Amino acid sequence: MSNRPETLNDIRALLAAAPGPDGDAIAAAEARNGQLTKPPGALGRLEDLAIWMGGWQGTDKPHADAPQVLIFAGNHGVTAQGVSAFPAEVTAQMVLNFQAGGAAINQLSNLFGARMDVHALDLDRPTGDFTQGPAMDEAEFLMAFLAGWDAVDPGADVLVTGEMGIGNTTSAAAIAYSHYRGAAETWVGRGTGVDDAGVQNKTRVVEEAARLHAFPTGLEALRCLGGRELAAMAGAIARARTLRIPVILDGFICTAAAACLAAEHPGALDHCVAGHMSEEPGHAKLLQELGKEPLLRLGMRLGEGSGAALAIGVLKGAAACQSGMATFAEAGVSDG
Amino acid sequence: MSNRPETLNDIRALLAAAPGPDGDAIAAAEARNGQLTKPPGALGRLEDLAIWMGGWQGTDKPHADAPQVLIFAGNHGVTAQGVSAFPAEVTAQMVLNFQAGGAAINQLSNLFGARMDVHALDLDRPTGDFTQGPAMDEAEFLMAFLAGWDAVDPGADVLVTGEMGIGNTTSAAAIAYSHYRGAAETWVGRGTGVDDAGVQNKTRVVEEAARLHAFPTGLEALRCLGGRELAAMAGAIARARTLRIPVILDGFICTAAAACLAAEHPGALDHCVAGHMSEEPGHAKLLQELGKEPLLRLGMRLGEGSGAALAIGVLKGAAACQSGMATFAEAGVSDG
Repeated sequence: MSNRPETLNDIRALLAAAPGPDGDAIAAAEARNGQLTKPPGALGRLEDLAIWMGGWQGTDKPHADAPQVLIFAGNHGVTAQGVSAFPAEVTAQMVLNFQAGGAAINQLSNLFGARMDVHALDLDRPTGDFTQGPAMDEAEFLMAFLAGWDAVDPGADVLVTGEMGIGNTTSAAAIAYSHYRGAAETWVGRGTGVDDAGVQNKTRVVEEAARLHAFPTGLEALRCLGGRELAAMAGAIARARTLRIPVILDGFICTAAAACLAAEHPGALDHCVAGHMSEEPGHAKLLQELGKEPLLRLGMRLGEGSGAALAIGVLKGAAACQSGMATFAEAGVSDG
Repeated sequence: MSNRPETLNDIRALLAAAPGPDGDAIAAAEARNGQLTKPPGALGRLEDLAIWMGGWQGTDKPHADAPQVLIFAGNHGVTAQGVSAFPAEVTAQMVLNFQAGGAAINQLSNLFGARMDVHALDLDRPTGDFTQGPAMDEAEFLMAFLAGWDAVDPGADVLVTGEMGIGNTTSAAAIAYSHYRGAAETWVGRGTGVDDAGVQNKTRVVEEAARLHAFPTGLEALRCLGGRELAAMAGAIARARTLRIPVILDGFICTAAAACLAAEHPGALDHCVAGHMSEEPGHAKLLQELGKEPLLRLGMRLGEGSGAALAIGVLKGAAACQSGMATFAEAGVSDG
């Protein structure tokens, strides 16, 4: 692709020049919505979603018929700090589970007819322990970012990005703290299930990392504090923007990766909707910072793209109503 | 059917003797859930939903493969009081739209592979204006209740009940006010779109009706203040209970009808989950009275079963994860 970035500054330039939605399609979708056989606004947020999807897809009849679920897995040097209840080997074991069809995200992808691709990113070579130095150098970061960039199917009409990586709630908390400050502990949660002492330890790690790296933001935060799977999700989200593919954000980790794009350029996430609100406590704060209202609030905290994948059903519903309903004129119904 | 009720007291006896969930299936579903490849509780409410469905369906591997959507339509004498922004003819026009496949509920039913049945209940003969007398006599009420009872497909594995009936938010408000009192205006909303004066008029109607009928509750409230479509939804929900079919409640009107069963017998709605929270303001209060936490909050207020039908996707997701995921042992994943 001619616009495939080769440096961090290329990525910044891409984000600044990213296309917006199609204004004519939005106007056409709004006009169609106003003629459908229902009282105005009675489908609530489904109507806004349908018009938003129509804008990005360039049509008054949006669709979610070819969703793609991208899962990136990475290993984290910061696990040396004892931040997870699970051993790092679980990342690779879960990749095998994804490949064998046994994980939650497999069931949800199948349910909604989504293409699902799993990318294991250098699992044998964890990122650096970010309490000691940057997680990635620039070349490592770009390779991970481009793994995400290249993984997007240009034929997809909706994209979900998910992740697996033992230790990555600590990475996400460090990124969020670095961008938005506040008290470090408000960004730290139990992840896969650490106890109170574990939460205290994660908070220490997050504070040390932010101080060591002098509170980086944007792509620098993603490079210094992220993991390969976070960089790849950001790459996929940026690529979806150039292709005008609407994206459903997943939980805390996915949203922290996405926040790095928003920190570089306001509006970089205009093509993204928040699929759900995770039980991981930092996620609510992160969504508030980004001005994103989640579609679902079901207390999920699994990652893997699972909350976003469940929200594919909501986008399918919004698209089906907008695109399939009869107008008052077609149905011979009095419009009040 | 041997247990088909013939009197109001038959219905009361049925509700009192209704079967509970299968305790062995619940235990088996909980045990299976604990072995699936995810941290404990990480799927949040999906896990509770799956176990609940398993209990009613009698299996540790619940399913939502054969959902049924039942739509009942009725006309209301109370429209003579000017309570709706739409003329009463719209009820019949929308039934034709349902039959032609043009309504929102058609799109959502198709999306989730649901069988959809539409029952127009004596549209030419509106119920009585309940500011002047009971909406239905006992025979009329039973006929409507049994229309719902008989409409349930015993082969369905999930049931959605929805409605269409110009004027029926006023009926639902009168039922809710009669059961739970408070200030009448807190139960009254804009329905399909009345203005402030319209809301005041609906409040007057609700107050007059509750006084005239001396605040009836349970089946008497449904008979005196309901419409045929509300009685039919209650009949379908009661029938689903005898068949142990889990039910997804829709919005304010569906939930008001269901509340009449709960008023007769505590636990009569244990097989029901709240599909969504409607924008109609009384719905939040009604769900709180019933102790039901909605699955979706998307600002919908269309009726037709649309919010509940959208929630079929959530139940499908819950069932798919519980029934399709690998266990730690099967996948060779370390369980922490």
